[in-house]
Amino acid sequence: MTVTKAVSSLDASKLEVLPLDSPKPVPTPDDSSISALKTTTDRMITVSWTAAEGWASPQLVPYGPLSLMPTASALQYATECFEGMKLFRGHDGRLRLFRPLYNCQRMLSSASRISLPQFEPDELLKLIRRLCAMEAPKWLPRDRTGSALYIRPTMVGTDSSLGFKVPEEAQLCIFMLYWPSPSMVTDPTQSVSRRGMRLLTSSEAAVRSWPGGTGLAKIGGNYGPTLFEHNKAKARGYDQVLWLYGPDRRITEAGSTNFFILWRTPAGELELTTPPLDNEGLILAGNTRQTILELFRTSFASSASSPLEPCNVLERRITMSDIECAVGEGLVLGAFAVGTAAWIQEVEEIGHDGREIRINISKAPHVAYIREKLAGIMLGDVENDWVEIVEEAAI
Amino acid sequence: MTVTKAVSSLDASKLEVLPLDSPKPVPTPDDSSISALKTTTDRMITVSWTAAEGWASPQLVPYGPLSLMPTASALQYATECFEGMKLFRGHDGRLRLFRPLYNCQRMLSSASRISLPQFEPDELLKLIRRLCAMEAPKWLPRDRTGSALYIRPTMVGTDSSLGFKVPEEAQLCIFMLYWPSPSMVTDPTQSVSRRGMRLLTSSEAAVRSWPGGTGLAKIGGNYGPTLFEHNKAKARGYDQVLWLYGPDRRITEAGSTNFFILWRTPAGELELTTPPLDNEGLILAGNTRQTILELFRTSFASSASSPLEPCNVLERRITMSDIECAVGEGLVLGAFAVGTAAWIQEVEEIGHDGREIRINISKAPHVAYIREKLAGIMLGDVENDWVEIVEEAAI
Repeated sequence: MTVTKAVSSLDASKLEVLPLDSPKPVPTPDDSSISALKTTTDRMITVSWTAAEGWASPQLVPYGPLSLMPTASALQYATECFEGMKLFRGHDGRLRLFRPLYNCQRMLSSASRISLPQFEPDELLKLIRRLCAMEAPKWLPRDRTGSALYIRPTMVGTDSSLGFKVPEEAQLCIFMLYWPSPSMVTDPTQSVSRRGMRLLTSSEAAVRSWPGGTGLAKIGGNYGPTLFEHNKAKARGYDQVLWLYGPDRRITEAGSTNFFILWRTPAGELELTTPPLDNEGLILAGNTRQTILELFRTSFASSASSPLEPCNVLERRITMSDIECAVGEGLVLGAFAVGTAAWIQEVEEIGHDGREIRINISKAPHVAYIREKLAGIMLGDVENDWVEIVEEAAI
Repeated sequence: MTVTKAVSSLDASKLEVLPLDSPKPVPTPDDSSISALKTTTDRMITVSWTAAEGWASPQLVPYGPLSLMPTASALQYATECFEGMKLFRGHDGRLRLFRPLYNCQRMLSSASRISLPQFEPDELLKLIRRLCAMEAPKWLPRDRTGSALYIRPTMVGTDSSLGFKVPEEAQLCIFMLYWPSPSMVTDPTQSVSRRGMRLLTSSEAAVRSWPGGTGLAKIGGNYGPTLFEHNKAKARGYDQVLWLYGPDRRITEAGSTNFFILWRTPAGELELTTPPLDNEGLILAGNTRQTILELFRTSFASSASSPLEPCNVLERRITMSDIECAVGEGLVLGAFAVGTAAWIQEVEEIGHDGREIRINISKAPHVAYIREKLAGIMLGDVENDWVEIVEEAAI
C-alpha cells in the first residue's frame, strides 16, 4: 500500500506577521520618485512552495530582495507569472478592490500555463486583502481619497536545478507600489493626458503572440521579447506598439492593453468593437476590457433606456484596413486602450506602413460617460457588486 | 555643448578575484547528487551593468544566490538569456573549449533580441576561459580525462523599476556545473543510452516558436512555456517533444535540440537532412547542429574521399508526412537530436497523431562515425582548430 502524504494548500489563515524594523517614509503624491516605479510599500507577503510539501505558511515580511540561485528556473526558463490590480481609496474614505477574484483566477490560469503550482484563487485574494489592510492605512491614507495603490502578485519558479523540468520549488510574492499618473486615479475623469496616445503598428517581422502560444496568459515571456519593438516605437515618438497579427494585419493589443474602437457602421449605427478572445489565444482577457464591454452593453443597449445614443457592442476582428477605410469615410468617433495600470486612454494617432492615421478624440460622449461611471464605481460614489470593501487594520 | 560620458565596455582584464572561504567537496563521477543538476563548482564570475556606467569590473566570487528585487525586470518580464557550453578534459590531460566564440556571439545576439546590454563576445570568452582556468584544476581534475563540465553564461535584467521598459540595470553571471550522462562525455562514443529517444510530436494547440517570434534566440521565454507540453510527453513515457509548426506539421526542434534525419532519396542516394535556419527564425542555430553539418559535408562528400558511402547534406523543411512516407517505404536509416548538453542522441520512435513511427537505429554507420570523430576533436585526439586549449591555473 502506498501512503501518499497530502501536500498543503495555500492557506491565508496561516499568515505569519514578521516585525518591521525600518519603515520607509511615504512620498507625497507629486514626489518625483514615484515615476521611477520603484516606490513600494513597507511590506510584502511571500509564500514558499515545494512539490513535496505544498504551500508553506504565508509571511508578511519587510519588502526587500528575493534570493535566487543563478540556476533558478525563473531566471533561466522564465517560469514566472504575475497580476496587476489596484486598491482604491474611495471618496468616502473606504478601501476598495475592483473585481479582484477575476485577477486571482487569471493568476491561477497563468500559473497553470507556465507550469507553476496551483492554488485556490480565493486564498490568494484573502492574502491580498490582508496586505491591503496592513499597508493602506499608512501608504494610502484616508485623506488621499480618489487615489490608488498598484498591487502586483508575482509567482516565480525558484527550483535551483538547471534541468529543463517543471519547477519543484516556487515562491509567491505580493507587493504594492505607487503607479504614477495618468493611471494613478487622483481623479479618474481627469487621468487621461490632454493629448491622446500615439500608437505605431508592429512590423510583420515582430509578432507578440500567436496561435498555440501564450498571449492569453500573464507570463513574463510575453513581455520581454516585445521590448525591442516597443523601444523602436518610443524612439520614433510613439507611446506604444499596436500589435498586429497575420497577413490581414488584424489588431490584437495596444502595448500591454486591450484595444477598442468606436465607429459608425455604413448603415449609420454606433458600434463599439474590440478584438475577440477566440480560440487562438492571442489576447489577454483584461479585467478592464471585460468591464468596458459590460458597461457599454448595459448602458447603451436601447434607445428607451440609454442616456446617450444607443451603441452596439461587438467582439470581432479588426484589421488595419478596416480602420483606414473607416477613418477615410469619417466613420471613426474614437479609439482607446484599456488596462488596470493604463486605465482608459484615448488614441489620437496610429502610425502604419509609413502613414499617419488620425483618430478623432471624444467625438462621441460615450467614452467619457463610461469613464466617469467606472471611476464612480471604483471610488465608491455608486454602489456596485463589482467592488469589494477592504476593512483596514488600525494604524 | 553636451558632454557625453563614455560608458565602460565589458573588460575581462579587470577581473577581481575575491576570496573563497568555504570550498565544497568534489563529488565522484557517479555521485547521485550530480543528476539533480545543482552541483556547481565553487565559484562564478559576475559582472554588473548599468545604462549610466556600462559594465563594472568582473568579479570571481563564491557561487551563491543572486539578490533581486521582486520588481526585477527578469522576474517580471523575462529579460534573460543564456548559453550552454562544455569544458572538456582531453585524453592528453589538457582543457579544451569547443568553438566557444560561436556561443559568445550567439549570447550577444540573444541579449540584443531581449533588450539586454551589448558586449564584445571575445571579452565574454576571456571571462569564460578565466573561470575554466580557475575552477577546472579542482573540479575537472587531470585524471578525469574524457569528462566535461557544463558552462552556463546567463544574463538577467536586474532593473527594479516595475515599468515596462528596456532594463537600465543587468547582471552577467557565468557558472559551471556537472551534467549527468548520457551527455556527460565520459566517453562520448558511449554516451548514447542503449535505447534511442522516444519523441512525441507537439499538438496543434502548442507552438514553441513562430515567424516574428524568438525561436532563434536563447532566451528564457522560449523554454518555460514549453514545459506544459514537455510534461505531457513525459507523463506518456516520451523523452522529449518533437516541435512541429504549421498546417503541414513541419519539424522545427526536438526538445531543446536540433533534429536530423538520415534517409535515402527515392533515387537511392543517401541524404542527411535538417530543418533550415530560414527567415522565419523558428529554430535555434545550434553549435552542434552547425558542426554536424560541416562534418558530414567534409567527410562524406564524394565517393573518392569518403570513408563510407557518400552522403548528401541538405537543410530543408521536413514534414511529418515526409517522415511517415519514408518510414513506410523503408528509406529511413536513422534520426538523431543534437545539442551541447544532449550530445548526439538517436531517435527510435516518434509518436504522432496516435501512431507510433519506428525509426531504425544505426542502420548506417555514418552517425557513429561522426560521433567518434567529433568526440576525438573535443577530447584532443585529433588536431582541429575548432578547439581552443585553456591553460589552467596552478591548483
